[in-house]
Amino acid sequence: MQGILKGLRVIEGSAFVAAPSCGMALAQMGADVIRFDMIGGGLDYRRWPVDENNQSMFWAGVNKGKRSIAVDFRKPEGREIITRLIAHPGDEAGIFLTNFPARGWLSDENLRKHREDLIYFNLTGDRHGSSAVDYTVNCEMGFPYTTGEDQQPINHVLPTWDVITGQMIVTGVLAAERHRRLTGEGQFVELALKDVALATLGNLGYIGEVMVNGHDRPNCGNNIYGAFGRDFMTADGERVMLSGITLGQWKTICKACEIQPQVDALAASLGLDLNREGDRYRARESLNEIVAGWFEQHDFAQAKQKLDDGGVCWGKYRSVSELISHDPDCSTDNPLFQMLEQPGIGSYLAAGHPLNFGALPREEVVSAPLLGAHTDEILTECLGMSSAEIGQLHDRKIVAGIEG
Amino acid sequence: MQGILKGLRVIEGSAFVAAPSCGMALAQMGADVIRFDMIGGGLDYRRWPVDENNQSMFWAGVNKGKRSIAVDFRKPEGREIITRLIAHPGDEAGIFLTNFPARGWLSDENLRKHREDLIYFNLTGDRHGSSAVDYTVNCEMGFPYTTGEDQQPINHVLPTWDVITGQMIVTGVLAAERHRRLTGEGQFVELALKDVALATLGNLGYIGEVMVNGHDRPNCGNNIYGAFGRDFMTADGERVMLSGITLGQWKTICKACEIQPQVDALAASLGLDLNREGDRYRARESLNEIVAGWFEQHDFAQAKQKLDDGGVCWGKYRSVSELISHDPDCSTDNPLFQMLEQPGIGSYLAAGHPLNFGALPREEVVSAPLLGAHTDEILTECLGMSSAEIGQLHDRKIVAGIEG
Repeated sequence: MQGILKGLRVIEGSAFVAAPSCGMALAQMGADVIRFDMIGGGLDYRRWPVDENNQSMFWAGVNKGKRSIAVDFRKPEGREIITRLIAHPGDEAGIFLTNFPARGWLSDENLRKHREDLIYFNLTGDRHGSSAVDYTVNCEMGFPYTTGEDQQPINHVLPTWDVITGQMIVTGVLAAERHRRLTGEGQFVELALKDVALATLGNLGYIGEVMVNGHDRPNCGNNIYGAFGRDFMTADGERVMLSGITLGQWKTICKACEIQPQVDALAASLGLDLNREGDRYRARESLNEIVAGWFEQHDFAQAKQKLDDGGVCWGKYRSVSELISHDPDCSTDNPLFQMLEQPGIGSYLAAGHPLNFGALPREEVVSAPLLGAHTDEILTECLGMSSAEIGQLHDRKIVAGIEG
Repeated sequence: MQGILKGLRVIEGSAFVAAPSCGMALAQMGADVIRFDMIGGGLDYRRWPVDENNQSMFWAGVNKGKRSIAVDFRKPEGREIITRLIAHPGDEAGIFLTNFPARGWLSDENLRKHREDLIYFNLTGDRHGSSAVDYTVNCEMGFPYTTGEDQQPINHVLPTWDVITGQMIVTGVLAAERHRRLTGEGQFVELALKDVALATLGNLGYIGEVMVNGHDRPNCGNNIYGAFGRDFMTADGERVMLSGITLGQWKTICKACEIQPQVDALAASLGLDLNREGDRYRARESLNEIVAGWFEQHDFAQAKQKLDDGGVCWGKYRSVSELISHDPDCSTDNPLFQMLEQPGIGSYLAAGHPLNFGALPREEVVSAPLLGAHTDEILTECLGMSSAEIGQLHDRKIVAGIEG
């Protein structure tokens, strides 16, 4: 790969979403990311979705572009191999990324003995080091209670906090690497999943809202809070989302849906200025009714035409299958995607990194490795081991290559 | 501020969540981030939540730690000021971050005339340059249909794609800055909100699942897909989320809730191996019943004690007010937070950057500026203007300071 981070080498010991997706992002920008796992696979090796052979498409998804080494790191010799990889010399090596507990042989103190300027990135569940996962953090942040129409809590499906955290780890690694390049100094960088959620909550105004206004945000169903926007059903039963957050967006809706006279009458009767987003939110029930009336008289094709012609900001509700079968953005028409042969699973669309760096051509999308696919190559290249030494390690079940 | 990115200067022209939250992250790591806005405020200046004076706690949330200059950039003189700021000389300046359209005076071609090694980061709605917001992207990705129990689409409340995108922009800026440091070369970097969502969908296995297994993922309500986990209600009506994704997590649940005998009997009757996460998902209805039975016999205090003693991974459902009033992690007990006086609004908890860089002390949390608070300071310091020149710009309404 010839990416913008070419040359960097990162050792990753991880499972699940956040840490692996950071490693993947780095790999998709050209870094050499070596993920180590226990022989037989780590905690996320069978994470759903899986295919009929119990091969995980999740695992294949978040490990694209990495190299894989399978090592029994319960054994001292396995730990020594990992330690040597982490502490490998070179300006651009010496970066370790993990969500494993930073203790024992993986303590910062221990690893730093082997390389003083190590960049050690450790992800934890909460700041006390307790375990927490996306789903146990999300319910604590208030979101399930404000999702949907009523007070029944509704969990999110996308592991949002994990995904955000994964991206924030990339920031941490790049900022620490910059610091080391400028000062020569390595460091231990920590991030807690729960802190990511708490900070985001604060950044978006949720904490201030309660502390200043003195009450929780009420449920508002599918409405966009504090502005105009909701889902509407067309005459033929399709559903679209409209966004009228900005005044410009709102005006395009009024024009495309030919509702300006009704909207003006409503504003007069309610004494609201519907050019203000807050007033649009206050008048949402009446506005929704007006807009819904327009959609009831248009089937999807007609509505789409008028919305597009009018420059309205809108989207269509659809399933993942519909997305794949109908949207050219989710196809190889979009340079983001390639059809990829994922060893062990089959051929399907896979995405590269969404960032487009003008100075460099786009990276090829590279599949996830089979577990242990690069064991021998890594032992040879990085640790300079001979075939005989490597053979011994296999015989003693300290390392493994591809299974079966 | 003395952060890890100290010295970097970023000019930000932005609105809403993604681009401003990138600028905030950079500022919270020590960069000098100058956000420019139209006199009177940009599109997001009144975004909800707002206080009783229509001051936006959202705006205050995502602009923490920045400097603000208010400029009428519809006027040529205003555009010249912004252009000079963007093209300002210096190794660590010359970074421009925006979600405004990159055309006209803000085209890459035009700005690069003034500084050849400019790093220009442009966020778009989709790859064709069309507008798209979080809510119109989310419905296209299939999530509303799989959220909740039935096929009624449920929008997410947190603007997930915006937040993820904001973090990815940080990556783009830091990677491009690294590239410039190593090669001297600036570049135009592009990212589309919709591409972020599409790539994430693919990375998590959603696209592979449909293309390989041939069908959409069914709704599973509040269950964790493909493993064990759901919300349960205690005898006194509190609600908790349990995570039994890993075998280790599952075993702690069986032990803490003393349900191993029932679980073993169930496994035998169903012919499933409940040590496998997929089998736990297949048996979820029966398992949920068993676990729900235990919670019905325990009030929250008792349940909490047993779950904590047993090391179970769990969380409590709560509102934002409950979070603020009961969780020390959401208080100044957590170094992430400070009580901050936000000018124009009041005093409330505000978060710094969740990353903890071992090599440096934590940053103080800095409030968002009042709009135009740094106009004169920036014109003096960065552009070397005299008081007379600045006075003239004010008189001609090309720039403004704090209003009212």
